[in-house]
Amino acid sequence: MTNLTSRSLKLLMTVALSLPLLAQAADPLPSWNEGPSKTSIITFVQAVTTEGSKDFVKPAERIAVFDNDGTLWAEKPFYFQLLFAIDEVKRMAPQHPEWKTEQPFKAVLEDDRQGMEAAGMEGLLKIVATTHTGITTDQFMDNAKTWIAQARHPSTGKPYTEMIYQPMLEVLDYLRSEGFKTYIVSGGEVEFMRAFAEQVYGVPPEHVIGTTFVTQYQLKDGQPSILRLPKLAHNDDGAGKPESIQAVIGRRPILAFGNSDGDLQMLQWTAAGPGKNFMGLVHHTDAKREWAYDRTSKVGKLDKALDEANARGWTVVDMRKEWQRVYPIDATATEQNQ
Amino acid sequence: MTNLTSRSLKLLMTVALSLPLLAQAADPLPSWNEGPSKTSIITFVQAVTTEGSKDFVKPAERIAVFDNDGTLWAEKPFYFQLLFAIDEVKRMAPQHPEWKTEQPFKAVLEDDRQGMEAAGMEGLLKIVATTHTGITTDQFMDNAKTWIAQARHPSTGKPYTEMIYQPMLEVLDYLRSEGFKTYIVSGGEVEFMRAFAEQVYGVPPEHVIGTTFVTQYQLKDGQPSILRLPKLAHNDDGAGKPESIQAVIGRRPILAFGNSDGDLQMLQWTAAGPGKNFMGLVHHTDAKREWAYDRTSKVGKLDKALDEANARGWTVVDMRKEWQRVYPIDATATEQNQ
Repeated sequence: MTNLTSRSLKLLMTVALSLPLLAQAADPLPSWNEGPSKTSIITFVQAVTTEGSKDFVKPAERIAVFDNDGTLWAEKPFYFQLLFAIDEVKRMAPQHPEWKTEQPFKAVLEDDRQGMEAAGMEGLLKIVATTHTGITTDQFMDNAKTWIAQARHPSTGKPYTEMIYQPMLEVLDYLRSEGFKTYIVSGGEVEFMRAFAEQVYGVPPEHVIGTTFVTQYQLKDGQPSILRLPKLAHNDDGAGKPESIQAVIGRRPILAFGNSDGDLQMLQWTAAGPGKNFMGLVHHTDAKREWAYDRTSKVGKLDKALDEANARGWTVVDMRKEWQRVYPIDATATEQNQ
Repeated sequence: MTNLTSRSLKLLMTVALSLPLLAQAADPLPSWNEGPSKTSIITFVQAVTTEGSKDFVKPAERIAVFDNDGTLWAEKPFYFQLLFAIDEVKRMAPQHPEWKTEQPFKAVLEDDRQGMEAAGMEGLLKIVATTHTGITTDQFMDNAKTWIAQARHPSTGKPYTEMIYQPMLEVLDYLRSEGFKTYIVSGGEVEFMRAFAEQVYGVPPEHVIGTTFVTQYQLKDGQPSILRLPKLAHNDDGAGKPESIQAVIGRRPILAFGNSDGDLQMLQWTAAGPGKNFMGLVHHTDAKREWAYDRTSKVGKLDKALDEANARGWTVVDMRKEWQRVYPIDATATEQNQ
C-alpha cells in the first residue's frame, strides 16, 4: 500500500506539474488576447494544415512572408537601419575629417535633425551608400553585427533586438511548428537583416529577402571576396515585394503580414492565389506601450492598405486591444523597472 | 516442429530478400564505380556530418550548390534552354507572319543553322527575349512545362528530363539524406529550370537560382500578375554565381559541383570558406554514352577551371571511367532498345 500510495502521489504530482505546460502547448499564441485576429490566424492555420480538409495545403507550399519594419520590430523614430547608418557615420568620422564641413555628414555628426531633413532623399542615399557599400559582404556583416550587439534605441534605451514584437514571434514559431517556411520580405537591406534575423526571429539567412545592392565578385591575391557597390539592384518595397517573392521563392505565399502601404502589393499578390490564404496588417494603435500612427505617418504610412484590408476583410491587428504584451518577456521586465 | 520450421523458413526468406536492399542502402552512390571521385564525395560527407568530427558542420550550414547544364543534365548540341527557345519560335510563328522574312526568326523557322550562327549573340538574345519575356510569370511557366513534357532531344530522341545524370541524382539524394540543402546555381533562366527541377531533381523552386529578367508587378482589372520584361536583371554565369549565392542564400556553400569555366568562381568562393569543403567538376570524357569535350568546346568549355582543379586537388569526375551509367535506369533501358 505504501508503495502504491507513493507511486500514486508521484503520478499525481507529474500530472499536476504537466498541466501548465499542456495549457501552454494548447495555446500557440499566448501573448494575443482572445479576439478577431487571434481567431483568424488559428482558424487559417488549422484549415490549411488539417489533412482531409478542403483547404489543405502541402507542407512544401506553406510559404509565409512577413514585412520586418513595423511588422516584426518597431520602426520609430525612423527605420532602425537608418539609425544604424547614422551611427556608422559617427564611427567612421575620424577617418573622414572632411565630413565636418560636408553635408549631409556635418548634420549627422552634429545631431542636427533639421539639417538632415534638409538634405532630403539625396542626402539620405548618400549616407546609406557611404555606410553600406564600398566594402565586402563579410566586412559589412561584421559592422552590422557589431552595431546590433551594442546599440541602444534613442528613446527606450533598449537594444534594438528587444524591440521585436513578442506576439509576432509567436506567430512565426506557430507557423514553423505547423510546417510553414517563414520568410522576411522587407524594404530593409538584405544583409543588414541577416545580421540578426536568425538569432532574433529564427529566420535563417536564406529566408531573408530585402533590398539589394549590386555586388561584384573579386579575386585579390588569390583571395575571393564580394564587393558591395553603391548601386541599387532591387528596391524591395511596394511592387518590389511580389517581384522578389517570385524571383527568389518562386512560389506564391499563402500567408502575408505587413503594416504599411509598402506591403499592399505583397498582400494583393497573396490574396490572388488559389486556395485559402491569409492577409494581415499590424495596426499601430498603442501610443502608450509602443507608438500610434497610420494614415499620415512619414514612416510606416498605412492608408490605402488599411482601406483595402477593411474592404476585403483582411485581418487588421489592433495592437492596443489585441496584444497582451508588445515586446518579449525580458524586455518588458526591463521596461517595468525603468 | 512443423510450425517452427515454417517460421524459420519465412525468417530465412525475409533475410535473404532483405540482403540486396541492405547492400543498396549501404552504398549511397550505386551508379558510381569505385574510384577517386566516389571516395572523395563519401569521405567529405562523412567528415562534415559525423558529430564529434573536427570537420563537423551544423545541418543548417550544409549548403550544396550545383550547376545545371552539363552538371545535372546534358548540354549538347546546345543548352537545352536554347532548343526550347527555338521550338517556341516555331510554335509562335503562325501569329508572326513577318518572321518569314525577318532574321533571326527566318533562319530558325527554316532550320538554317548557318543563318542562326550568322545572327550571332544579338540574334540569340532576340530569340530568347521574344520567347521568354513580354508575358507573365504564370504564362511563361505554362509554356515551359508544356514544352518539357513533350519535347524530344534532336539526336537521342529522349525527353530532356531523361537526359539527366543518374550518378548526380544519387549525389543530390545522398546529400539531402545527410541534412544538406541542395541548390541549383545556373546560367539557365530561373523560371525555366523551376518548370522541371522539383519533379526531376527533387530541388524545390526556392532552391533554384539562375539568370533573371527584370519583372514588373501589375494590376489589371484588380487581378495582379508579374510581367517579364526583356531586360536582364542578373546574368548567373561566372562571377555572377558567387554573387547570386550570397544575395539569395547568404551563406557560403561547403560543396560546389560544376563542369565548365562558368563555374570556376563558384568553386573558388566555396574553396575559400572556413572549414572543410568539396569542389567537383564533371569532366565530359564519354563520346560513346554521352559527349566528350572540354578545352575547345563552344558550349561547356572547360579549360581554366580544369587547370585550377588539377592544381588545387579538386575532384574531377572522369565520366567514362567513373560513371557506371549516365542516364537514369528507365532511360538507359530505352537506349538499349533502340
